[in-house]
Amino acid sequence: MTPSSTPPSRHDLDPASTTTADRDLYRSLSSYTAKGVGVISAVSRGWDFAATVTAYLSVSYDPPTLLVSLYRDGRLAEALEEAGEWALSIVSAEQKDAVQWLAEPGNPLHGLLKPVPHFRPTDGGPVVLSGSLAWYQARTVAVHEAATHLLFVGEVTSMGQAKGPDSRALVRYGSDYRAFQ
Amino acid sequence: MTPSSTPPSRHDLDPASTTTADRDLYRSLSSYTAKGVGVISAVSRGWDFAATVTAYLSVSYDPPTLLVSLYRDGRLAEALEEAGEWALSIVSAEQKDAVQWLAEPGNPLHGLLKPVPHFRPTDGGPVVLSGSLAWYQARTVAVHEAATHLLFVGEVTSMGQAKGPDSRALVRYGSDYRAFQ
Repeated sequence: MTPSSTPPSRHDLDPASTTTADRDLYRSLSSYTAKGVGVISAVSRGWDFAATVTAYLSVSYDPPTLLVSLYRDGRLAEALEEAGEWALSIVSAEQKDAVQWLAEPGNPLHGLLKPVPHFRPTDGGPVVLSGSLAWYQARTVAVHEAATHLLFVGEVTSMGQAKGPDSRALVRYGSDYRAFQ
Repeated sequence: MTPSSTPPSRHDLDPASTTTADRDLYRSLSSYTAKGVGVISAVSRGWDFAATVTAYLSVSYDPPTLLVSLYRDGRLAEALEEAGEWALSIVSAEQKDAVQWLAEPGNPLHGLLKPVPHFRPTDGGPVVLSGSLAWYQARTVAVHEAATHLLFVGEVTSMGQAKGPDSRALVRYGSDYRAFQ
């Protein structure tokens, strides 16, 4: 064991009664996690919903299973609950403009995908961003509540690639979106 | 809408009856997600357990809540279930050797942390890697089954930084661990 010479700068908190200082420090620390950027999409009541996400992960290879964490009271969570199926596009650096657009809160559903190059792998199904390093279509098999969010667990029913010439990953780190070299 | 000129190269699968080809393609596509590298640790039956992970995410800011997905039949999942509390270290590029060691399957518990610079933020609690960009200690509030894995949801009870001189993030992409520049 090599003991650290750096003091741990420990900050304790009570989850049952958090302070603004607790939440601010947590937000700040969270920015130090590098996160591959994705876009979640679903079709609900005839509309295409899509938003930039970083809180997703691959749960299992057998069967291929994904998880995405969405804000409980947001329109995207509502759309996924209604639709039961959704797509996850793992975006490349060339899609940065689309990602920034789809990360804006409160952007209009009408014309949402106009500035976003995309295609629809299955008729009437959710869209996938053109140029994605990987994409998945999934069917929700469980939804779990967790604090302010809903965890959607989905089994993959279709998948593929749509890579363009620039196949560098887009990564969120700090408050930036940057290409992973 | 700008339609893609790339065909979607779609591969369909039946989650109820996956083939080797399905799972291999999913593994291959999954490698295109850039993932910040972390280490999960817990103390169980007097032993320190620790392993490299990339399947974790921040669920919520209020209260600060984390999720980690662990293989159901692995010793780390068992340790977390038994311990009820665990730590997540978000590692920096300078910790690559420790990360590779802790990613090896079947490494011995006896002496596991000998080559790993670390400290213990709370007496008797789980270890944190020295030099971490951020670290969290969490108490499990829910465990969900999902395919081959268990999803541990934990509320943060303590957090901090332990950054050394090299504060670049360590990112897994493809089969490499690389510094995020």
